[in-house]
Amino acid sequence: MTLDTVEAWDAARLAAWSEPLLAQVESALSRWVGVDSPVQLGEAMRYAVLDGGKRLRPLLVLAANEAVGGDAQAALRAACATELIHAYSLVHDDLPCMDNDILRRGKPTVHVKFGEAGALLAGDALQALAFELLTPGDGSVACAVQARLCRLLAGAAGSQGMAGGQAIDLASVGLALDEAQLRQMHRLKTGALLQGSVEMGAACAEGVAADALAALRDYGAALGLAFQVVDDILDVVADSATLGKTAGKDAENDKPTYVSLLGLDGARARAQGLLAEALAALARSGLADTAALRALAHMVVDRDR
Amino acid sequence: MTLDTVEAWDAARLAAWSEPLLAQVESALSRWVGVDSPVQLGEAMRYAVLDGGKRLRPLLVLAANEAVGGDAQAALRAACATELIHAYSLVHDDLPCMDNDILRRGKPTVHVKFGEAGALLAGDALQALAFELLTPGDGSVACAVQARLCRLLAGAAGSQGMAGGQAIDLASVGLALDEAQLRQMHRLKTGALLQGSVEMGAACAEGVAADALAALRDYGAALGLAFQVVDDILDVVADSATLGKTAGKDAENDKPTYVSLLGLDGARARAQGLLAEALAALARSGLADTAALRALAHMVVDRDR
Repeated sequence: MTLDTVEAWDAARLAAWSEPLLAQVESALSRWVGVDSPVQLGEAMRYAVLDGGKRLRPLLVLAANEAVGGDAQAALRAACATELIHAYSLVHDDLPCMDNDILRRGKPTVHVKFGEAGALLAGDALQALAFELLTPGDGSVACAVQARLCRLLAGAAGSQGMAGGQAIDLASVGLALDEAQLRQMHRLKTGALLQGSVEMGAACAEGVAADALAALRDYGAALGLAFQVVDDILDVVADSATLGKTAGKDAENDKPTYVSLLGLDGARARAQGLLAEALAALARSGLADTAALRALAHMVVDRDR
Repeated sequence: MTLDTVEAWDAARLAAWSEPLLAQVESALSRWVGVDSPVQLGEAMRYAVLDGGKRLRPLLVLAANEAVGGDAQAALRAACATELIHAYSLVHDDLPCMDNDILRRGKPTVHVKFGEAGALLAGDALQALAFELLTPGDGSVACAVQARLCRLLAGAAGSQGMAGGQAIDLASVGLALDEAQLRQMHRLKTGALLQGSVEMGAACAEGVAADALAALRDYGAALGLAFQVVDDILDVVADSATLGKTAGKDAENDKPTYVSLLGLDGARARAQGLLAEALAALARSGLADTAALRALAHMVVDRDR
């Protein structure tokens, strides 16, 4: 057991840290999502967002904000905004014209329950709501922070982030990608929003040193890629009931993955290497309170769903 | 001919005013949209946005900004952002699960050319790009303006704006809406983004009087509704070639419209009434330079496509 492991990864301590924060996030999402929206739209938005998911992105925002000592109100809004972007991407990803999936978080997907048009609109509205949450007009969050958060989220979600990665993914089915191409796809598809979540947490404070911000970006990039490597592993080794979504989809769809490229053992070694990279970045950040970020990195690599 | 008409509505003067501004908008969109985006995504985004459309929303932003004497750089970004939101909504609206339309601006729709998944992602990426354009990190736009613009755009695009209106529209096919219900649907579906464009233009200046802002909102609301009434009229009286999209769709889809509700003459009278409301709002705004806004209101009501 390394020093890092002793210091950072204690599932019980992580749970104790995250539990009250997750309660805040759930309560805020329930207060902010799909309220006063017309007809079934609000219901579909709430169905897509509430009561499900690991909330990894919100936790990354809140842990990074804790590391830099930022504004709690801004961080809570940023945490919810990242989850809305994530949720909208799942809703659209599950549509028949994309992955055509009918099971998500153990429930029927949004389009199965609300129809394709309803799911399309719910996803669209969730993306807009993310930016609405980041820009309260009541003076509770400084304008400079609002602007930074919107910039980071838009970049992470857009054509040079998540949406761009999905486009590469779409164009890659059946192709033999090499590792550099696979990494580039995942760096955008899932990595951009995970890294963006860390950066958004850090953006809730003023005057964070450039070195620390760069180290947090490196942490986010390594963690983002590790997340995808582990996803690829779980798609092979876990069953649908544990995952809460259809397992074995990648092989079935002939999608290139870290497991198809590196083998199961190779992929596991890669995940551990990325964990080490993430922890090293935190160590050189010069930030005092990175325990939660360290624990989250361990959790991402050790998770079983 | 009323004084208003003499003063405000001169197609040649409007063209002279708008031509250099439209050139700026086209050039900015071409510089900002779909550049360095992966694979076909950038191409689909550019196809959806460039070389087409009346650019009414950008012109409303720029005219409102002119009326309040705001920041030109902020207004150009806001103008482009409103057009991106409009363009994304058309891409998603045309999808088979929504209106299933194959012709737009005289060209095959995005999903016909790039596939459904490609169109879905292009729309998603365009929405994110709108917020990216509003939040440059180079100090060229004040943070307070960035935050206001994001807030207004997110509200206009989301579940209590455009997306909400589309959800009502979807739920209304085949229903006998009364005029209040029809107005509420259109107030959100097309009105919110048109009114939002006016408000975003006004948000590019600091210290605009609350009365003036309220009057501009009223102008935007009246103009937004007038736009839809005229759209309903054109769907009946114009042909597809002139419209650049499929005419007669409303009746075919059994959608409630102002023409089905008020008749053709009644709808025309309603459009004139809304024009008068819009002009009256400008007159009470206390703003000196509203000529462009006045001319745009006339253009919206007098247009033939």
